[in-house]
Amino acid sequence: MNDSGRVEAFSDGVFAVAITLLILEIKVPAEAGDQLLRELGHQWPSYAAYVVTFLVIGIMWVNHHTVFGFVERVDRTLLFLNLLLLLGVVALPWAASLVAEYLAEGQEGSSLLHGSDAAHIAMAVYGSFMVYHAVVFQALWMHLTKTGHLFDSRIDTEAARRTRWRFGLGLIIYPCTVALAFVSAPLALALHGGLAVYYALNQISVPVHDTAS
Amino acid sequence: MNDSGRVEAFSDGVFAVAITLLILEIKVPAEAGDQLLRELGHQWPSYAAYVVTFLVIGIMWVNHHTVFGFVERVDRTLLFLNLLLLLGVVALPWAASLVAEYLAEGQEGSSLLHGSDAAHIAMAVYGSFMVYHAVVFQALWMHLTKTGHLFDSRIDTEAARRTRWRFGLGLIIYPCTVALAFVSAPLALALHGGLAVYYALNQISVPVHDTAS
Amino acid sequence: MNDSGRVEAFSDGVFAVAITLLILEIKVPAEAGDQLLRELGHQWPSYAAYVVTFLVIGIMWVNHHTVFGFVERVDRTLLFLNLLLLLGVVALPWAASLVAEYLAEGQEGSSLLHGSDAAHIAMAVYGSFMVYHAVVFQALWMHLTKTGHLFDSRIDTEAARRTRWRFGLGLIIYPCTVALAFVSAPLALALHGGLAVYYALNQISVPVHDTAS
Amino acid sequence: MNDSGRVEAFSDGVFAVAITLLILEIKVPAEAGDQLLRELGHQWPSYAAYVVTFLVIGIMWVNHHTVFGFVERVDRTLLFLNLLLLLGVVALPWAASLVAEYLAEGQEGSSLLHGSDAAHIAMAVYGSFMVYHAVVFQALWMHLTKTGHLFDSRIDTEAARRTRWRFGLGLIIYPCTVALAFVSAPLALALHGGLAVYYALNQISVPVHDTAS
Repeated sequence: MNDSGRVEAFSDGVFAVAITLLILEIKVPAEAGDQLLRELGHQWPSYAAYVVTFLVIGIMWVNHHTVFGFVERVDRTLLFLNLLLLLGVVALPWAASLVAEYLAEGQEGSSLLHGSDAAHIAMAVYGSFMVYHAVVFQALWMHLTKTGHLFDSRIDTEAARRTRWRFGLGLIIYPCTVALAFVSAPLALALHGGLAVYYALNQISVPVHDTAS
Repeated sequence: MNDSGRVEAFSDGVFAVAITLLILEIKVPAEAGDQLLRELGHQWPSYAAYVVTFLVIGIMWVNHHTVFGFVERVDRTLLFLNLLLLLGVVALPWAASLVAEYLAEGQEGSSLLHGSDAAHIAMAVYGSFMVYHAVVFQALWMHLTKTGHLFDSRIDTEAARRTRWRFGLGLIIYPCTVALAFVSAPLALALHGGLAVYYALNQISVPVHDTAS
Repeated sequence: MNDSGRVEAFSDGVFAVAITLLILEIKVPAEAGDQLLRELGHQWPSYAAYVVTFLVIGIMWVNHHTVFGFVERVDRTLLFLNLLLLLGVVALPWAASLVAEYLAEGQEGSSLLHGSDAAHIAMAVYGSFMVYHAVVFQALWMHLTKTGHLFDSRIDTEAARRTRWRFGLGLIIYPCTVALAFVSAPLALALHGGLAVYYALNQISVPVHDTAS
Repeated sequence: MNDSGRVEAFSDGVFAVAITLLILEIKVPAEAGDQLLRELGHQWPSYAAYVVTFLVIGIMWVNHHTVFGFVERVDRTLLFLNLLLLLGVVALPWAASLVAEYLAEGQEGSSLLHGSDAAHIAMAVYGSFMVYHAVVFQALWMHLTKTGHLFDSRIDTEAARRTRWRFGLGLIIYPCTVALAFVSAPLALALHGGLAVYYALNQISVPVHDTAS
């Protein structure tokens, strides 16, 4: 057993570093000379991947904290599931890099909307990380609602149990983004951005006895 | 709703990582041999971009904390505006890199004070980030003063409301730095440094009922 | 003397940054074109090194916190031993990179299971870091149990003293992983992964008077 | 005015990230093949720069915290001096990289102990950062002892005032390391390591009324 404050502080640190490392994905155009503005323009896939992934990690952090704000005790399973979640979060700067690199390649030699085969694959890999996060987050929530005693006293354990598929929606939507990646890579990226904004403005709620917090 | 402590801790982490990643922008001269001292001297735009951007991020952190120190409750809009602010902060190591790269290029083939076309563009991009920060910070302050109930009890909400254009000055100054970038890139960079030092020594004040804190 | 909270916060930060820097080890395949999926597949040693080292650092963080959660006072020796421990943790992204690079090389020109000579050496270096951690952690625990007065009051100092070889098992297992590296580099990496999962699910316990925490 | 807790948390973050970024300075030998062990051996200046700079940043963090642990209030000058201190700390991974690069170059074509001209310059730059830190730390301590009211109540302000040259020793020693760099670069690096260990085991003390903390 372990108190949840430490797990949160560590997770916060990991989220904060991962979201900031995203910027290393965007390169400064080398020796662009007079063409700097044009070269910068060509980098739009890097900017798009940066903005979308920034919002994705930001919202994941918000959800992580909403949930852990109600966790008082941490058992080994929760600790391990949390590590598995962070394992995916930390990989996102790499996934964003992959998308930026191959969306850019898709610009030449094929229509923008469709993109190259590599762009499809890159975007499908990106979407797979979101499927992974949805699965681990769902497992984490199920563990919390099933055990019950890890929650703090504000939580209505019975009501929480009825929400155990709370994050199940992601298990349907995110596989769809993987499929969409093969139709249009840029559209799939845009959808990830849209989902992040949607989740930002429609935060998850947690069933509590009273309106504390 | 969410307590502001967590948002602050996460934002602190992001500020701290972003300010430290700045150093990755400065490269070690490769195989300089006997010319090491000279090669180091040639890197002055990297050092200048580093120092100025370090102070800029440092002061933004100070302002961010002064404001959030008076925030007790966080709603979805504030959370989202804060994410948008951090989106710009995290990009600053890239912007500093861009300036360092093209101020250096400006050294050869054109007068130092004027700089190359690329130096102008790089510096204008840098200034645009400051415009972006000023806009988001202003939006954030307006949201806080308009809603009022997010402040803690020390704040005189009526007086705070009258300061809702508090950060409006940046909306005038920073676009000017973008214009100045096209006249002289090094001067524009120096102005950003000067503004940071000015803000460091003239911290914003927040209208409180009493002198708590 | 120094309170342990600060040492923990600093150590937490270092663990969180080190675990996140691991991702920089995995490169995005350059100009893979149609071969992206195959190129990604060829990177399996990078993914394996990432996942295993992520779990290793994650579990080290858990153990570090379990121990420091019972430390109330910090003397100079503890401070120095803690710095020595972090010195090894911070180096792990480099060790993971080394393994990823030379396990990949081992793929061509020699059997996968055996690997190249370079793969053996890389994996032995990796294992040596674990030996180093085991030695420092053991020294740290011995210092804590020998002095006794650094623990908080929940700890049964006498019982703790009898556990002073608690981390001694690692002093036997980890040198074995170094030896195994010369037999099969991939097996040695897998063993490190297995040990991390084992430690994750079988957390160390600390002898306390009562069941506080 | 600003409470010191936030300044500490931010500074902690910066110290933790800077100390961890040090590892990026050490490269993995590329395509070493059978020569991996030898190639790793050739990298000793990188390892030396890493270990010494790790200890230097670690001890600076300890001193920073010992001092700020007694600071209750933060004025604008202190805030600015602290930013200037961090400006130097963040640059250390670059300075370590510089030393590693040019100590390695010094290996060939000149005696190891003496090193190349570039090695002297690199080491002198490294030492200059320590001079810079000593100056800023001394200025910070003088500001604290002169104003007095920023300390918390445990501090004996009169006694503290008499220690205002506490960090003055560094103002003598560190310039000597710069001079020593021109005699022998490796010796100068070793001296920095020795000073760090010395400071680790002989922590600064602060005059307090009673033995709190």
